[in-house]
Parts: sequence; C-alpha cells; structure tokens
Amino acid sequence: MARLVMKFGGTSVANIERIRNVAAHVRREVEAGYQVAVVVSAMSGKTNELVGWVQESSKIYDPREYDAVVASGEQVTSGLLALVLQEMGIPARSWQGWQVPVLTSDAHGSARIESIDPARLNASFANGEVAVIAGFQGMHAQTGRLTTLGRGGSDTSAVAVAAAIGAERCDIYTDVDGVYTTDPRVVPKARKLDKVSFEEMLEMASLGSKVLQVRSVEIAMLHKVRTFVRSSFDDPADPRPGTLICEEEEIVEQQVVTGIAFSKDEAQITLRRVADKPGVAAAIFGPLADQNINVDMIIQVVSGQTVSGQTGNGEAMTTDMTFTVQAADYERAMALLTKLKPEIAYQAIEGATDVVKISAIGVGMRSHAGVAARAFRALAEKGVNIRAITTSEIKFSVLIDKDYTELAVRTLHSLYGLDKVA
Amino acid sequence: MARLVMKFGGTSVANIERIRNVAAHVRREVEAGYQVAVVVSAMSGKTNELVGWVQESSKIYDPREYDAVVASGEQVTSGLLALVLQEMGIPARSWQGWQVPVLTSDAHGSARIESIDPARLNASFANGEVAVIAGFQGMHAQTGRLTTLGRGGSDTSAVAVAAAIGAERCDIYTDVDGVYTTDPRVVPKARKLDKVSFEEMLEMASLGSKVLQVRSVEIAMLHKVRTFVRSSFDDPADPRPGTLICEEEEIVEQQVVTGIAFSKDEAQITLRRVADKPGVAAAIFGPLADQNINVDMIIQVVSGQTVSGQTGNGEAMTTDMTFTVQAADYERAMALLTKLKPEIAYQAIEGATDVVKISAIGVGMRSHAGVAARAFRALAEKGVNIRAITTSEIKFSVLIDKDYTELAVRTLHSLYGLDKVA
Repeated sequence: MARLVMKFGGTSVANIERIRNVAAHVRREVEAGYQVAVVVSAMSGKTNELVGWVQESSKIYDPREYDAVVASGEQVTSGLLALVLQEMGIPARSWQGWQVPVLTSDAHGSARIESIDPARLNASFANGEVAVIAGFQGMHAQTGRLTTLGRGGSDTSAVAVAAAIGAERCDIYTDVDGVYTTDPRVVPKARKLDKVSFEEMLEMASLGSKVLQVRSVEIAMLHKVRTFVRSSFDDPADPRPGTLICEEEEIVEQQVVTGIAFSKDEAQITLRRVADKPGVAAAIFGPLADQNINVDMIIQVVSGQTVSGQTGNGEAMTTDMTFTVQAADYERAMALLTKLKPEIAYQAIEGATDVVKISAIGVGMRSHAGVAARAFRALAEKGVNIRAITTSEIKFSVLIDKDYTELAVRTLHSLYGLDKVA
Repeated sequence: MARLVMKFGGTSVANIERIRNVAAHVRREVEAGYQVAVVVSAMSGKTNELVGWVQESSKIYDPREYDAVVASGEQVTSGLLALVLQEMGIPARSWQGWQVPVLTSDAHGSARIESIDPARLNASFANGEVAVIAGFQGMHAQTGRLTTLGRGGSDTSAVAVAAAIGAERCDIYTDVDGVYTTDPRVVPKARKLDKVSFEEMLEMASLGSKVLQVRSVEIAMLHKVRTFVRSSFDDPADPRPGTLICEEEEIVEQQVVTGIAFSKDEAQITLRRVADKPGVAAAIFGPLADQNINVDMIIQVVSGQTVSGQTGNGEAMTTDMTFTVQAADYERAMALLTKLKPEIAYQAIEGATDVVKISAIGVGMRSHAGVAARAFRALAEKGVNIRAITTSEIKFSVLIDKDYTELAVRTLHSLYGLDKVA
C-alpha cells in the first residue's frame, strides 16, 4: 500500500473541534487507500505557555530541561488526535519521538534528526493503524534525553518520517493554502505557486519565508520527498492541492524569478577605516564565529583614506567593512567588536537595526544574465538606496532601509511579472 | 550518603512561585547532606484540563491514549523544578517515568509499579544531582507505552522510588500538615497524629481518608519505608515534622482506636427473597467480579419467607442479600443484576446511594474486646440506624444514612477519646 505523511500545525489542532476537522482530512486519505502517518504540533499557544514557564523558572535555562518541558505540548495533541480517530472508527495510536524512535543530535532546543528507524511504524501500519506522531521532538540516543528541533520543527519531523517510511508524498497542512510568490499581506497581487523547486523553496525558507522550516526543505530535497503545502481549513471532502515542492524537472513553465522573500530579522554593522592588511577579515569574523554569531552579507569597500590621516609613501590604505547579522545577535556582536577594537584596528563602528533584506529567487537566473541589474535600476528609480548586495546562482539579495520594505517588494514583484492577472 | 525522597502534590507546584517554595524545601535537605529524589505531580488543575480534553475527544476512550495525554502534566513540572533548582545553584535533572525506568503493568489508567531499576538514579546521585522524577507515570516494558498509576499515583511513585533507592525516609508534602484522627472539616476537635502504623494507615486510606493513595501505603508497609505526611506550606526554614507512618513497634502510646474514616463513595444494593440454595452467592458476585465491580460489605439475612409464597414441606427458604459497591459502579451493577434476575431468582431489587460508610481503625482492637459493640450502642442512643456492619482485626465499619455522617463521626470520635483537649 502507498504511504502518506500528513502534518498539521498548531492552529490546525488548537482545540478538539479543529482536531476533529484534522481527523476528517485523515479519514479521506485512509479511505483513499493510504497507510497514513500524521505528524502534529502542539495546540497553538501551548508552546508559548510552556516556554513562558521555562523563562520564569530560570534566566539562563538548561536547554535539556527546556526540551523536557516544551516537548509535552506535542505529546498531548498526538494522544488527542489518536482518540478522535478511534472515535471515528479509524484504528490509530500515538507515537512520541522517543517511542518511534526519532533519534537526534544533542543540540537541545535545535536538535538535528539523525535517524528514524521505521521498523515499529511498519509494524503499526501492518496492524492497520494510523500512526499519530508527536512532531518537533526526538531523543538523543546516548543520553536518552528528550530533544526538540526548534520552531517549525514539526515540518522537519514530517518530511523526515516521510523519507524514513518511503511515503509517496508529504502533505504539510497549514493556515495558508500554499506557497506564494511573496507575502500576500504585503503584496495583495501575490500569486499562489502550483509548483516550486526544492532549491527555490530552500532559498525562500532561508531568506525569510516562514512557510516551512529550512531543515525540512533540506531533508525533502536530499530524499526527494514530494511535499505539498496546503490548507487545513479546506473542506475535508473537497480540498485544494496547494503548492507542490518537487524537483526542478517536474516544473514545465519556469519563470526567471519565482518569488520575492524578505527578512526584517537583520541588522547591519559597519567598521570604518579598518587597516587593509592580510588577515583582517579573519580578525573580524573569526571571533564572531566563535560566539556562534552568523554573518550573512559582507561588503568591503576600499575607502582610500589613510590610517590616522598620515600621508606619504609609507601610508597604509584602509577599508570599510559592512556585514549583516541576525537581529537577535546584534547586541552581542556590537559588544564583542567594541571590545576587539585594539586588535582589529578600526576607526569607528556603526550599527543599524532598521534594515531589511529583500531577495529574489528563481532557478531561471542560472540561464538569464542581468536579472539582478534590472532590480538595482528599478529600485534606484523609486529612490530606494541599496546598502549591500549579495548574489548566488539562483537568488540575489539587497539590504535596504526597513521603511522601504513594501515599496521594494512590490516593485520587484511587478518587475519580474509575478503579479496576479486581475 | 543518606538518601531522601520528597514528594510534592499539585497544589504545591501550582505555579512557578510555589515551585520556588518547593525548591527551598529541597535545598534545606540537600544542605543537610541528603542525596535527594523529588517526585512531583502535575500543576493543580492541569490533570483535570487534560482529562477534559480526553473526554471531549472520545466517549469510550482508549486508556493507552488517555495515559499518553495525561502523563504530560508531570513531565512539565519535573522540568520546571529542575530548572528552578539549577537557578538556585543546585545541580538537578528531570526524569520521566520511562527514563528511570519505572516499569508498570499494562493496566492503563491504574497501572501497578512492577519494578524500578535504581542504576541510572544512582549514577545521577553520584554526579551530585537532585533527581526530579515525574510522578504518576511509568512505562509498560513489553509495549513501550506510557502508563499512569491512577489518582494519587504520585504518592505511590514516591514510596516506590524510596524503596528502590534505599531512602532513609519518604516525605509526602501535601496541603495538610499530617494525618488526623478524622477529617478536621467534619470534626473541628480532630487531632493530628504524630505516628500511625502502616496497617492503620492502609485501612484509613482504603476506608475513605484521602491523604494517601492505598497502593502507596501497601508499598511503604511491604518495604518498611518510613513515610512522613507533612505540609508543603510550612516555612522551608522551619518545617514541622508532620505525621510519621511507621511500624507498630515504633508507636509507644497506642490508642485502642486511632482514627475515624468515612466514605460517601458507597452505594447499597439489596436483593429480596433470593432462593437460599448453594451457589447463590456465586451467581450474584461472580458476574459483578467479571465486570470489575468490587463488592465491599456483604450481609445475608435469612428472611424465612418462601419463594412465591408457597407453603408446605417442599417450601424453599429465601434470604435477603445486602451489599455495597462503589458509587461509580452503582448504575452498572443495578443494570447487570436486573438483567440476571431469572438466573439469580430473586423477588425484588432495591438500591440506595444516600449512604455513608463510617469506620473506626486501630491496632489496639486486636487486644481489646467489645470495641465495636460500644459504637453500636452509642449510635443507637443518637437514633442512627445501622444498615450494615463489617469488622476485621483492626477496624470495623458501619453503613448508615448519609444525613447522619457528621453526627456519627463526631459521636465515635468522642467515644474513643480522640477529641483534642481544648
């Protein structure tokens, strides 16, 4: 029998009435002949309640205990959905991460799935049971302790289970009906995509689209799990297909740009007049990496001015270094770099948190030149100042003032022909 | 190092502030030099919330899923208390039942602890950690599924852990400051007992005192675990000792009667004019046992009347059978016996739920005759009608109308000299 994984997020299981609606979706697929594994999140609000208690308990909290507390939310919904399915006459049982087992690294709070043994789930399917699996959680094999996968981790649980049991596809049910060309709240003309490639989805997730956890797309891509993003609020009797995330070859009509993503979760740091000598980049970025501070965009401009305004043949050239970090790491990064001023030898440090990173993603960029250049021109025409640029094979990103977010997203969305035809 | 188990119930861990108070009690014992295992219940109200969701999900619910859902409450408090202890500088870690492991039978919802392997807890103590154990829950070894021990099961977890790790004593912290001669809400003159024997406590718990789960007292008695019942609301810097439950030999000044218990959780059933022939008791009580309906008091009175009013030498004597069942089982028992009327051959069935069982307990009864007889006289003088009587070596019980509960309890409490001296 073909197998299917269905994943439901917190808003989809917020109360028993909604869990009944989830069960109706599951019943449809069981009646269609699938062996079904359902992956569930905690009831919406519950994880925040649990995290709140953890923070109230301890300022610098032990992530192992954080995981023990927070994993309880998914435990509750897995049991409740199994009960509702049984009440409908559908054999079902709940599975905690440690029962499957879903084995992970010991990076508590953001653990990586290392393996899922399908043997017990296979036996459960052979018994005719729907497997209701608590998402977001696993166990570290060596210590036997509970782990969690980080926010959005249930997506990753679902895709990893789909890979482990050889599911025909993985349906991620959520509160939106698919993946859009950009956030429809910012651009009302945003269109739902029928298909998007793994590579593009990975970039979108990395660059600010919150539809899926990045790690879930990585696993889907690695194991070629056909993944649908679709709405849990559709009529269970007549659901829409949502957006398919699949291999590039499956997508016939390829656009140059598929989507526009943006992230307000950025901060910019500039070091002025750094002595432009070998090893200076290592002196800046080495200590940041040691503190687990990820640096994203980096631009270096030779400022042409001399250190301390010296002149003459012996003068040393200086450079301005601009880069971005996650907003959450901004204060720590500024403090660290201020402390390191003597070692790095810069003249001044400047920071800004009122910035946004806007990205255009599309596998078509591989075969089309000048895609980014058109954007720079269009933004310049609207008076949007670009603070930094990065490009890669299938995307480019610009860092601009936060105030221009909506204007810039709309401009690029129209520029690349993504607007919905009215 | 000497070891100690401390157990805290739901009201003692109802919020983070109270959990801090619990941690202060734990710190006192750690500073006194004990290796401490703490057993915690779910935050008060949480178990009811979880049970409510289960009941909303499914009318006749799968007890295995009930256990998966309900066990999550203790998981949360175990992690939170570990965090609060760490914040105080006391090394601590949480243990779920399946992590210890606490292995139980598969009687989901009221599982019995079968074994607790102390090896991992011993290693944790050797690391200098306080072990914070989620009470009420365990795992069935063969299926690997979560189990729960029934209401009050955390008491049992605590005593069983104490036996497994060889603890010097087990302190049950609760919202009362000890075991009383009877419920102080009914008899304001009730006195706190300094000591009570295992046997007496077992009877009290079985007969309606809600201070401890019956099973916890059985385990304490079997393994001779010195168990204190004491208040979690005492000042952690200056706590009172509470009531010690211990072996009879430790109790120097033995009363004839130690306490008066009562249970409103009873129902009475009478079968009139049952044919008094061999096998009739089996015909009545066999089917009830098959349905897991426990029968408590049984009295049989030969009514002397003949079946169907027949006369003559061939007449068969009849008997009236009166017995009690738990109020929760009353409807089921009445339905079952009504269905079995032809097989049992009785003339009429009568039932009453407005009854109460009042019991007097004391190991001193073994060596004193006429203890119960004094009670029957005293109750008769107050006009209290006794519907049924049972006695055993160290207790007797009477079944009376519920309206007379307070009067009867006060009467017996005074009769046996239990009133507090003003």
